[in-house]
Amino acid sequence: MKVVVLVGGVGGARFLLGVQAALGLPPVGAAKKDVPHEVTAVVNTGDDVWMHGLRVCPDLDTCMYTLGGGIDTERGWGHAGETWTVKQELAAYGAEPTWFGLGDKDIATHLIRSRMLRAGYPLSAVTEALCARWQPGLRLLPMSDDRVETHVVVDDPDDPEQRKALHFQEWWVRYRAELPAHTIVPVGAEESVPAPGVLDAIGEADAVLLAPSNPVVSVGTVLSVPGVREALRKTEAGVVGLSPIIEGRALRGMADACLGAIGVETTAEAVGRHYGSRQTSEEGVLDGWLVQSGEAVSVPGVAVRGVPLLMSDVDATARMARAAFELCGVDVD
Amino acid sequence: MKVVVLVGGVGGARFLLGVQAALGLPPVGAAKKDVPHEVTAVVNTGDDVWMHGLRVCPDLDTCMYTLGGGIDTERGWGHAGETWTVKQELAAYGAEPTWFGLGDKDIATHLIRSRMLRAGYPLSAVTEALCARWQPGLRLLPMSDDRVETHVVVDDPDDPEQRKALHFQEWWVRYRAELPAHTIVPVGAEESVPAPGVLDAIGEADAVLLAPSNPVVSVGTVLSVPGVREALRKTEAGVVGLSPIIEGRALRGMADACLGAIGVETTAEAVGRHYGSRQTSEEGVLDGWLVQSGEAVSVPGVAVRGVPLLMSDVDATARMARAAFELCGVDVD
Repeated sequence: MKVVVLVGGVGGARFLLGVQAALGLPPVGAAKKDVPHEVTAVVNTGDDVWMHGLRVCPDLDTCMYTLGGGIDTERGWGHAGETWTVKQELAAYGAEPTWFGLGDKDIATHLIRSRMLRAGYPLSAVTEALCARWQPGLRLLPMSDDRVETHVVVDDPDDPEQRKALHFQEWWVRYRAELPAHTIVPVGAEESVPAPGVLDAIGEADAVLLAPSNPVVSVGTVLSVPGVREALRKTEAGVVGLSPIIEGRALRGMADACLGAIGVETTAEAVGRHYGSRQTSEEGVLDGWLVQSGEAVSVPGVAVRGVPLLMSDVDATARMARAAFELCGVDVD
Repeated sequence: MKVVVLVGGVGGARFLLGVQAALGLPPVGAAKKDVPHEVTAVVNTGDDVWMHGLRVCPDLDTCMYTLGGGIDTERGWGHAGETWTVKQELAAYGAEPTWFGLGDKDIATHLIRSRMLRAGYPLSAVTEALCARWQPGLRLLPMSDDRVETHVVVDDPDDPEQRKALHFQEWWVRYRAELPAHTIVPVGAEESVPAPGVLDAIGEADAVLLAPSNPVVSVGTVLSVPGVREALRKTEAGVVGLSPIIEGRALRGMADACLGAIGVETTAEAVGRHYGSRQTSEEGVLDGWLVQSGEAVSVPGVAVRGVPLLMSDVDATARMARAAFELCGVDVD
């Protein structure tokens, strides 16, 4: 069976663990050969940033480390046993920015990636090379090999009369999404094309899932790459999303601040309607929408089902994935 | 008083500590204001190399860390308290080369340098920026802002029928200079120009010293930059060199392997004659030549003096520098 999952970082990576478990794929750390299913994760790269001359891809790396068994499971991002010597030295030089944490282990990844990018390799080839070490057990594809960077327009903290566009990372990490966002723009998206394999994977899939990642700056950014939305609307696979909003609250990250910026309420219903039905709306992508059990949610033209949506462990997440596959109309047993 | 010293890495850095002490300059770690002397070190950059996408300048950094109090004094290079997390991670990825040790603290320096170089700053400006942290107490100038890289021609280790040019670092660090060198070439030197300030410093100096650094791949490379040799021949300052060879042996590094490649014996006399007299030879640069006390050395047209040349501690090194200044005809008291 062929599966495509559109994902962001921490939440997306955890969801992918559940997808693997639901499909009976070997767990993290086990040998990854002769698996009967083929999973492709299409990963948001709008958070990517050049930092101290290194290309950092937070969502790709979080997925790669998580699926490869290298993640700091407490924190959800970065390496287990990470150290911060380079960061401290950069600070001793007064090198800006100081608000972004480049861990020592992480830097090795960024060095290899940056060197390959500068040598002319596309990000998708770089990602494949890095995954040769981590063996994530599925195919990680950047949404695009082109540079797309999510920018957030805020009131300038230094001059409230002015507006200022911040890179997503600065808004998210430095300001913890506390500066109200007027708009959120995936800069470069219009001119970007999907990475090799993305459209084919969607076209050939038996099931397509939208992970319970941030609907604006994760899944939304993937959808902003021209061709992705159209591929989702055309595929013969069922397309099912999982709500990242439970009882009006974003469970991870600061999705409410992002939803507010694009005028969408922080409810499972509003997000489901924002994604829309691929049957009855002109831009919609969903056949099904999984929300937290007990919530009364209606999305025109979309089959809504309630299930427990807390990714408290891999088993619980696997049950979510299984419910999503069911709603797609495929049998994973 | 204005002093210029041509230097390489470990030996050059130690000699600079002696020069500072001889001039009564504040020791490492002390405040560096209101000093009556101005010292310019013109540093070999032929060892510089791109490594994992980072520009590494071993001699500049060794001088900077040594004079700034950050050096690993046991090893003579790299940072005190260095850690190797990034290196281990790069090896876990299988990233080549693995024979070059990039320390974590060191990497911060290289990140800042590489970022500035890519942004268009010349190496001299980058060095000045890095020295703002380390406060070496003298001016460190790269010999050139242009890319000059020392290559060593050897029999190809993989195919003895062929010759192969290795970057100096590969020959020195990976092969420990054990592959016999047919020639040693400062690639790019012919087209290079001295860094801003180098020629003026030599022209305005009261004394010019050639540190007891490697005569081929350190001082020799500095001399290969067009204009430097001519400036040494023209300056009104006395020009005095210190022999890195004592009783026919190179005290540091593997200078004998380098001297052999250019057909110069490993003796103080041969090296002195290789540098030559600026009075009586056409390409020579020396007025004076300091050799180990007790050695009978004759260099036509050059005043030779014997003194203890072991840089066993800063005081001993300061006495060497003091003897060099005397031979230059300047009084540093």
